[in-house]
Amino acid sequence: MTERRTYSYLGPAGTFTEAALDQVPEARGQDWRPVHNVGEALADVLEGRSHAAMIAIENSVEGGVTTTLDALATLPGLRIVGEYLVKVDFMLVAAPGTALDDVRVVAAHPVAYAQCHRWLGETLPSHQHVPAASNVASALGILDGTLPADAAVAAPGIVRHHDLTVLADDIGDNDNAVTRFVLVTRTIAPAPPTGADKTSLIVELPQDHPGALLELLEQFSTRGINLSLLQSRPIGDALGRYRFVLDADGHIHDERMADALLGIRRFSPGVVFLGSYPRADRKIVNYPDRYADDVFVEARDWLRSLVSGAPTQ
Amino acid sequence: MTERRTYSYLGPAGTFTEAALDQVPEARGQDWRPVHNVGEALADVLEGRSHAAMIAIENSVEGGVTTTLDALATLPGLRIVGEYLVKVDFMLVAAPGTALDDVRVVAAHPVAYAQCHRWLGETLPSHQHVPAASNVASALGILDGTLPADAAVAAPGIVRHHDLTVLADDIGDNDNAVTRFVLVTRTIAPAPPTGADKTSLIVELPQDHPGALLELLEQFSTRGINLSLLQSRPIGDALGRYRFVLDADGHIHDERMADALLGIRRFSPGVVFLGSYPRADRKIVNYPDRYADDVFVEARDWLRSLVSGAPTQ
Amino acid sequence: MTERRTYSYLGPAGTFTEAALDQVPEARGQDWRPVHNVGEALADVLEGRSHAAMIAIENSVEGGVTTTLDALATLPGLRIVGEYLVKVDFMLVAAPGTALDDVRVVAAHPVAYAQCHRWLGETLPSHQHVPAASNVASALGILDGTLPADAAVAAPGIVRHHDLTVLADDIGDNDNAVTRFVLVTRTIAPAPPTGADKTSLIVELPQDHPGALLELLEQFSTRGINLSLLQSRPIGDALGRYRFVLDADGHIHDERMADALLGIRRFSPGVVFLGSYPRADRKIVNYPDRYADDVFVEARDWLRSLVSGAPTQ
Amino acid sequence: MTERRTYSYLGPAGTFTEAALDQVPEARGQDWRPVHNVGEALADVLEGRSHAAMIAIENSVEGGVTTTLDALATLPGLRIVGEYLVKVDFMLVAAPGTALDDVRVVAAHPVAYAQCHRWLGETLPSHQHVPAASNVASALGILDGTLPADAAVAAPGIVRHHDLTVLADDIGDNDNAVTRFVLVTRTIAPAPPTGADKTSLIVELPQDHPGALLELLEQFSTRGINLSLLQSRPIGDALGRYRFVLDADGHIHDERMADALLGIRRFSPGVVFLGSYPRADRKIVNYPDRYADDVFVEARDWLRSLVSGAPTQ
Repeated sequence: MTERRTYSYLGPAGTFTEAALDQVPEARGQDWRPVHNVGEALADVLEGRSHAAMIAIENSVEGGVTTTLDALATLPGLRIVGEYLVKVDFMLVAAPGTALDDVRVVAAHPVAYAQCHRWLGETLPSHQHVPAASNVASALGILDGTLPADAAVAAPGIVRHHDLTVLADDIGDNDNAVTRFVLVTRTIAPAPPTGADKTSLIVELPQDHPGALLELLEQFSTRGINLSLLQSRPIGDALGRYRFVLDADGHIHDERMADALLGIRRFSPGVVFLGSYPRADRKIVNYPDRYADDVFVEARDWLRSLVSGAPTQ
Repeated sequence: MTERRTYSYLGPAGTFTEAALDQVPEARGQDWRPVHNVGEALADVLEGRSHAAMIAIENSVEGGVTTTLDALATLPGLRIVGEYLVKVDFMLVAAPGTALDDVRVVAAHPVAYAQCHRWLGETLPSHQHVPAASNVASALGILDGTLPADAAVAAPGIVRHHDLTVLADDIGDNDNAVTRFVLVTRTIAPAPPTGADKTSLIVELPQDHPGALLELLEQFSTRGINLSLLQSRPIGDALGRYRFVLDADGHIHDERMADALLGIRRFSPGVVFLGSYPRADRKIVNYPDRYADDVFVEARDWLRSLVSGAPTQ
Repeated sequence: MTERRTYSYLGPAGTFTEAALDQVPEARGQDWRPVHNVGEALADVLEGRSHAAMIAIENSVEGGVTTTLDALATLPGLRIVGEYLVKVDFMLVAAPGTALDDVRVVAAHPVAYAQCHRWLGETLPSHQHVPAASNVASALGILDGTLPADAAVAAPGIVRHHDLTVLADDIGDNDNAVTRFVLVTRTIAPAPPTGADKTSLIVELPQDHPGALLELLEQFSTRGINLSLLQSRPIGDALGRYRFVLDADGHIHDERMADALLGIRRFSPGVVFLGSYPRADRKIVNYPDRYADDVFVEARDWLRSLVSGAPTQ
Repeated sequence: MTERRTYSYLGPAGTFTEAALDQVPEARGQDWRPVHNVGEALADVLEGRSHAAMIAIENSVEGGVTTTLDALATLPGLRIVGEYLVKVDFMLVAAPGTALDDVRVVAAHPVAYAQCHRWLGETLPSHQHVPAASNVASALGILDGTLPADAAVAAPGIVRHHDLTVLADDIGDNDNAVTRFVLVTRTIAPAPPTGADKTSLIVELPQDHPGALLELLEQFSTRGINLSLLQSRPIGDALGRYRFVLDADGHIHDERMADALLGIRRFSPGVVFLGSYPRADRKIVNYPDRYADDVFVEARDWLRSLVSGAPTQ
């Protein structure tokens, strides 16, 4: 009998974060623990209340991405083990029997409301807005009568759990909105590479001069490693000091990535390795042949022969 | 008699965005137009309804920063003319006569509520949360009775306009939170340099290879220009293509910045010049002497003499 | 009636340097002035005794290439106007009637003798060597009897001027030896580009640190300019200070080269522009489209429109 | 009883090359083998006739430096074990009893003659020149009567071996001329570092594009390694392909140099490690603290802990 595991996520049930957690096969049938924000979720992991936490890391409508980045930069002992993408998609839902024409008052989390503003303005030009505490609370509130509204803006996951009619779907103003989530555990050894991996780092620049960032990026480019995320964040202890959040294509077990990590560690006054883990899109990482593992191995053999003075080079 | 000007901002009155607009001397006594989101604010400017719009561009609690960046990247005809910082500071306010001990129910915008979660949990452990549509609506709702709450989480600006008692201030969980705003107009000539300027750009990389970003950054570093913001954003038309949002120290009238802009224009398939404008912190930009204007002028004179064949070099 | 012009070259008549000068159409029928070394040749030009001087600049068997480079670095007022390649090819010549089997004693300039050592050892294993003052003097000495030898090692040009029998040709040990010569005048405007041009520079590095050379080379690589010669030379005034002699593909009239020269001038404490002139091999310079002249012109137009605030970018 | 060792050098005895060999303590009392050129000297080493060869590698008046570089690039199995500097200094010598006023005819190797041209022209304006096969042969020729001259231009070493009067010393036109020599053996393990070492390499660039050289140099600059020699040489098998001869400060046993060598090996289609050996000037190599050995060791420990998943970073 295996031990049950707890997963923390931004609740309540029905959020986009829950939709991300729903993509994790090994989380199915385990305990899911809703929390109020990223800080709580990471504290659950660090203090042993949870095995892992699902948190938004890029482009979230549920807020707090810079909070996430700053927390990951400053809390030691964490590691990202997986990445998940959730399309940011809104529905207008109502109690069964309600028709779109009946809707006068719409319950919505204010951020979700802002993101559906165009559709609501065109479709229901004279509606009223009642705020809700979350995308889930808006739907529950119209079901249990605590919110004085005829319909609710909600995330798609809600209809799996509750008896709701979908009046319209895909009502968000931005068709391409996607939020990126990561699953975070306490520090463990990285899982083996899949060929479609990324490595996340937070790197403090040695000092505020024009060349420092360039020197950081050269550590990747001179090993044929592509970056898919690069974001500056003020360190906060002094004006003009920055750390950079980076996603790099590849895995710490790849020779070129290990070599880049060595270079970065030597360069930076503070580098946090957040983890090597499979990409959400499962896209195989391509790189020039000259950065293949065997090129690194061969070079080390060559260096050894130089040092030993073996007759042939 | 001068014409009155209209300024669009994320409303309603009392938001952090309004606090940013309040820092603009030339906006005082003019018409302020509250809008629902960044898209509306920029449309007001482009379509002539407003002279300028104040929008959040970095680390906003009012959401939508990536929306801002993507809008600036894709809407031609805009220019940033000023930068403003607003401390993200929350208060617990109530109707006059209310004491902290009386508070059982707290009205709050859900994002603000999340940001004050620790303080509220420690100070009012048994409180209930009633969601509000905005940081302003929470305060107004307890005054006019439309929200069934004893106190509201609000932005500091609210007490200037309404008769409210401050039960506690500085209740946000993150002491250092600051949002950066920019004031945007239709394309105009940049104001003269002040010595404490920054230049904002959005640059598309020529192709997805490791060296392209490096080449972009070299355009700055080889002219002694420091970057204070660098953020990748997926272009969205295809996987793996990125544009970069950059803030660079200096002004387009500086020789070194003009030269860097030339280099970037030649390099990039798409570059948007967002503007050169005074830094919010009024900090004078320092740079090595070798990148001073007269060094550029002298080099041009030298080149001219080489081409002419003048006897002395 | 045009004025006659004087050309200085390393003499006496019949040297490889003369063979280089022989490739200059406009020097035909003019006065040719043999000198003893590069210093004399350049002094002739600077002091007005000669219109131009032909000097070896790379891989010379007649010695003194580093002398040439150091002279060009320190003597102001000179400009390279043409480049010429001469194959370093030796013959064994003798007075008419002499056969190879008759040869017991060989006259040769010591450097030429060293370069033909293998051939002479194999073909004439028991020969004796009599030194000559130059490749020409060796041949003349056997004709006029001042050198006690049966044959002479000489440059091919000699047989045009003197009645000599060629006993063997192409007797040098290195088949690929070529010397590169340049024609130098007082500073004049560069001739128009031919499409197959090179630009020669001598650049002092700002200080002895690992990044300075890199910064110099970036001035070329970021403009798509290839280098065909790069050679460090100690400056001589202090240990560890270097200047670099560079040949870059392209012409000062090319936008990308002019822009690179500006960058180098701003960077270097001392840069000598030696000239833009047609390559000896007449090979058309290729470069990526993104560094074409019109890209530079378009970028300048764009910058101007940004500064003016014109409505469209 | 130790075996006697043979050292090859450019002869005859009395050359500058012999003066270089004279600086090698372990060569004293061993067999010195004069040869005619660099090719012979290196063949002696490779074929076992000699233990080591002294050859000029930079700025030689005895010719052939590019020959040296090309030979080292193409002959496998050699290694540089020491570096020696010899001041290029000429004397005017004569048989005892001769005074400067008696001199009418001067014997000199033609290259030496050219280098003393100014002094001879000023001091002995009406002298005649008789060529000699070498700097030594000129002196010997006036002693044994085979050269019809009153005095000889010779290298200073000659007076140690022969009964000659020095009529004038330091008569070369260039006061600062120095030739750099290296001592070459078959491939052996490098001697331990002294702190004042250099490492010599010949590196073929992967292809003829503007960035390749830059990428090579970054391998050094990103490890804090300074270069003291950089020279391009055409490869010779095709137009426009180059290899680079480099001297880098430091020793292959230094972590930063070993790491740079790995990077270069991975980058280059052909790299020849010529050796790590003490600098002739015994100047201690300085480098930034961040490139010290322990920084490399610490980074490897860190990488290992990341891979193992150890709880603390």
